[in-house]
Amino acid sequence: MAASPISRYPVPRLDELPADIRARILEVQEKAGFVPNVFLTLAHRPDEFRAFFAYHDALMLKEGGLTKAEREMIVVATSGANDCLYCIVAHGALVRIYAKQPLLADQVAVNYRKADITPRQKAMLAFALKVAQNSAAIDDADFEALRSHAFSDEDIWDIGAIAAFFALSNRMANLISMRPNDEFYLLGRVPRK
Amino acid sequence: MAASPISRYPVPRLDELPADIRARILEVQEKAGFVPNVFLTLAHRPDEFRAFFAYHDALMLKEGGLTKAEREMIVVATSGANDCLYCIVAHGALVRIYAKQPLLADQVAVNYRKADITPRQKAMLAFALKVAQNSAAIDDADFEALRSHAFSDEDIWDIGAIAAFFALSNRMANLISMRPNDEFYLLGRVPRK
Amino acid sequence: MAASPISRYPVPRLDELPADIRARILEVQEKAGFVPNVFLTLAHRPDEFRAFFAYHDALMLKEGGLTKAEREMIVVATSGANDCLYCIVAHGALVRIYAKQPLLADQVAVNYRKADITPRQKAMLAFALKVAQNSAAIDDADFEALRSHAFSDEDIWDIGAIAAFFALSNRMANLISMRPNDEFYLLGRVPRK
Amino acid sequence: MAASPISRYPVPRLDELPADIRARILEVQEKAGFVPNVFLTLAHRPDEFRAFFAYHDALMLKEGGLTKAEREMIVVATSGANDCLYCIVAHGALVRIYAKQPLLADQVAVNYRKADITPRQKAMLAFALKVAQNSAAIDDADFEALRSHAFSDEDIWDIGAIAAFFALSNRMANLISMRPNDEFYLLGRVPRK
Amino acid sequence: MAASPISRYPVPRLDELPADIRARILEVQEKAGFVPNVFLTLAHRPDEFRAFFAYHDALMLKEGGLTKAEREMIVVATSGANDCLYCIVAHGALVRIYAKQPLLADQVAVNYRKADITPRQKAMLAFALKVAQNSAAIDDADFEALRSHAFSDEDIWDIGAIAAFFALSNRMANLISMRPNDEFYLLGRVPRK
Amino acid sequence: MAASPISRYPVPRLDELPADIRARILEVQEKAGFVPNVFLTLAHRPDEFRAFFAYHDALMLKEGGLTKAEREMIVVATSGANDCLYCIVAHGALVRIYAKQPLLADQVAVNYRKADITPRQKAMLAFALKVAQNSAAIDDADFEALRSHAFSDEDIWDIGAIAAFFALSNRMANLISMRPNDEFYLLGRVPRK
Repeated sequence: MAASPISRYPVPRLDELPADIRARILEVQEKAGFVPNVFLTLAHRPDEFRAFFAYHDALMLKEGGLTKAEREMIVVATSGANDCLYCIVAHGALVRIYAKQPLLADQVAVNYRKADITPRQKAMLAFALKVAQNSAAIDDADFEALRSHAFSDEDIWDIGAIAAFFALSNRMANLISMRPNDEFYLLGRVPRK
Repeated sequence: MAASPISRYPVPRLDELPADIRARILEVQEKAGFVPNVFLTLAHRPDEFRAFFAYHDALMLKEGGLTKAEREMIVVATSGANDCLYCIVAHGALVRIYAKQPLLADQVAVNYRKADITPRQKAMLAFALKVAQNSAAIDDADFEALRSHAFSDEDIWDIGAIAAFFALSNRMANLISMRPNDEFYLLGRVPRK
Repeated sequence: MAASPISRYPVPRLDELPADIRARILEVQEKAGFVPNVFLTLAHRPDEFRAFFAYHDALMLKEGGLTKAEREMIVVATSGANDCLYCIVAHGALVRIYAKQPLLADQVAVNYRKADITPRQKAMLAFALKVAQNSAAIDDADFEALRSHAFSDEDIWDIGAIAAFFALSNRMANLISMRPNDEFYLLGRVPRK
Repeated sequence: MAASPISRYPVPRLDELPADIRARILEVQEKAGFVPNVFLTLAHRPDEFRAFFAYHDALMLKEGGLTKAEREMIVVATSGANDCLYCIVAHGALVRIYAKQPLLADQVAVNYRKADITPRQKAMLAFALKVAQNSAAIDDADFEALRSHAFSDEDIWDIGAIAAFFALSNRMANLISMRPNDEFYLLGRVPRK
Repeated sequence: MAASPISRYPVPRLDELPADIRARILEVQEKAGFVPNVFLTLAHRPDEFRAFFAYHDALMLKEGGLTKAEREMIVVATSGANDCLYCIVAHGALVRIYAKQPLLADQVAVNYRKADITPRQKAMLAFALKVAQNSAAIDDADFEALRSHAFSDEDIWDIGAIAAFFALSNRMANLISMRPNDEFYLLGRVPRK
Repeated sequence: MAASPISRYPVPRLDELPADIRARILEVQEKAGFVPNVFLTLAHRPDEFRAFFAYHDALMLKEGGLTKAEREMIVVATSGANDCLYCIVAHGALVRIYAKQPLLADQVAVNYRKADITPRQKAMLAFALKVAQNSAAIDDADFEALRSHAFSDEDIWDIGAIAAFFALSNRMANLISMRPNDEFYLLGRVPRK
């Protein structure tokens, strides 16, 4: 089988893009060695692209009580619940790299209960999945459960907001059939030389 | 019963806020006559506030094949599926106002099949609900169904992206227990004098 | 869009109806100022009409431990779970009127956890929803939970029986596409003059 | 294990009951040789008892396009979906007796697709189950499907109304833990002598 | 209606079968007085037949902490959840015979909470149903719950493994439309003479 | 975090095992270079071990219309639906190796609709998932759909039987918390030297 295209929608060439978007894409290419398809495919809509990555950066790059690996674990666990191939594969690579655990992403994507993580991290992912799947039922008891694991209320906002942002992201990726770059599948699985 | 607070989280005072956010809030107050709670409650996180409303505006204020009333109908139908009180009540008011149909928002929030809308609009909402509830199963047949109702592929992106953005919005509102302003409940139900 | 008819089935004229049914309809018209469509549409089957309203009256008009507003809240919450437009709109009006809370019906229809009601009323609605959605799993622990909120066993029968009766009512309304009268949407939202 | 009681609620003695209810019970005892527990347990609430059986009789004893066996098949199939022991066992006996097919009730309670019935009867039960489980999604296509099997619109009302009435009945039986009489389990399984 | 065939697939004649399979079938016929259709229909694939019954015997005929009636109750409860007519009817007969309770199989197939069994047996069936329906969520708390009812860890393996084996068996029976022998429906319902 | 053990249950030492089981394990070790944990963990119950692998071999090693890669794709897709970490990881390795497509296993585990496979293979996996998730609803139309893709009825048995066998296997792995060997995660992702 030939590989499917990276989006159902037209993918702009770099030289067609507004300068700020082109700069962002060149920056990520410089850093990662390739351009993740989420940048190319969402660039079809420049205003949405800008808002998407501003939101992403506000949640994923900020300081706070959650480690980078924990944030990416939230992404992978909720993307698993939403059956989003792009996000599982791309953010799975980030889980492996940040946590320096080559097996962790697959574990979290399938069943966080069986992952090599702490009970506190399991409580974090249980809450994230409730936000992803049944947010109307969230109540005080859910907040108490996280506080008992020493999560602050600001941490809880972070957990919930990441789950909420990837509820959007997973649906966009499924809508346009966003294809993960081949490179992601192997990243973090083998030691860098 | 006393009314519940408008958020589980602290709500900043206007004079504490960054100037751009304060300006946006004053502008909406000027226009609507009150400040919708989504502005006050999300202002707790200024960077996320900015990204949220940039995304919102990119989808809801742009030109395109969908009318303003249709965009708000997508919001209300998917927020109904997610049991999000804030979005049903606040965007229900917008449906009534834009469509000039005082019954339409309640119809769409409960069951779009019974709403006083066209078959084309029913197809639009069926697709939006699939994005909201089962986006992994979207396939070519769903695109074909919308094209047969003369939706362009750019319209389909709009429909799906609005459903995806409110997947985020509904989860944030449920996370923080965002309370709709009392004013929204009645807006558009009675003729303006 | 033209408004849809009030039923998929023929709606009898008043002068075609048996005397007892006509009398009941005239009585409700006298009291409410209009004839709710449930009376006109179910009159297509006189024997079922009589049994339906006898059952309704036995549950909704009797004395007992639940207030009228609480009974109607059970109707609205379970009709919300069953996506029944007629019952949400018509009984939502009754919730607003009996409780003298113009926002309450919309809150309860979408998510009782966020409604301006007491913890005891939330326990009542949680039980009603379990009867509506998963009655086979009701067990002693559910009865104990309600007793701990000072509901008697007769109150529990009332809660469960109202949920059960509107399981029927919601399905009939969905079967025949019963349309709510326009009047209901606004009732109880604005102070009576 | 001792057998459980026939209801969570007090069961009135015959001599405590209003005359009309006592007469109805004696009549059914005369005919069936025993008193089905639904009569004894619901007699705890005389007004609800009267409405319940008036409704039941209006649907199950009337003339119409459905045979008695078909009506009872609708009861058994939908009670199977609702996991209602009383109704499966009691109305299963009636299916066996009316259809003169000793295997039919168990087949229909578990999976109508595998039952020894006609394609027309399978279409009838598919519709009844949609009324029982997802009535909000009923639309014109469902009516067309039944009409193509030569069901009239009045037949369709009968099918839907029986499914709706037993939505109530199943929930009441589950609420009060109504126990089927031992006699029902064997009725219609062996030839009467 | 003519009865449906016992399988969608060809059913081998006894004289076509390998000797070991023929011997097994003759042995069960000798013992039961008829050949259960599971033997005839699965014999279409001799190697799978041998593995299937080896697995069955390893779980159902072994010594251990569960009685024969309890093992068959697990089969019936999980087959009820999977809507498998063959297994409910055939193993329901075994429940009745081993437990010497003619009503028990129907109770367990529909709703174990209402069955005439001990609290320990209800805990056993709750666990079996979790293995059948949501095995990924099994965690230490489920094991603790069973240990508190004096189930050993080997008993828990037995409960889970029987539920797992009939997850296979139910799916095979549904795949090939395996028809229960008429004889099973009545077995154990009336005293043997 | 320390890695979790490979089973909730005791894992026998090789020298404690019956000779036939030890031989099988040594054979697989010879071939694969390590012993997959399914062999060590299920050896806790020798009779069940023998039946399990006899069944496995009858389905997975036989000749027939499905390629080895296709059989393993069925395993991975249905194990994805059942959230079974062991089977996704271990059989994912086999999908990569047999299909010589390093990305295929992750695609199929998450969403076969997005995998780089043929329409015929997508029809095969849709059927396998129906057997895994809703086998009671399988009917003639499902068989017709596969026949239209040139699957024989024997192929259909193979597809369904593999889905059924891994319904068992997934539940056993989840029951005992079977841990995938670390080796599997990387197998087939990089070219063998």
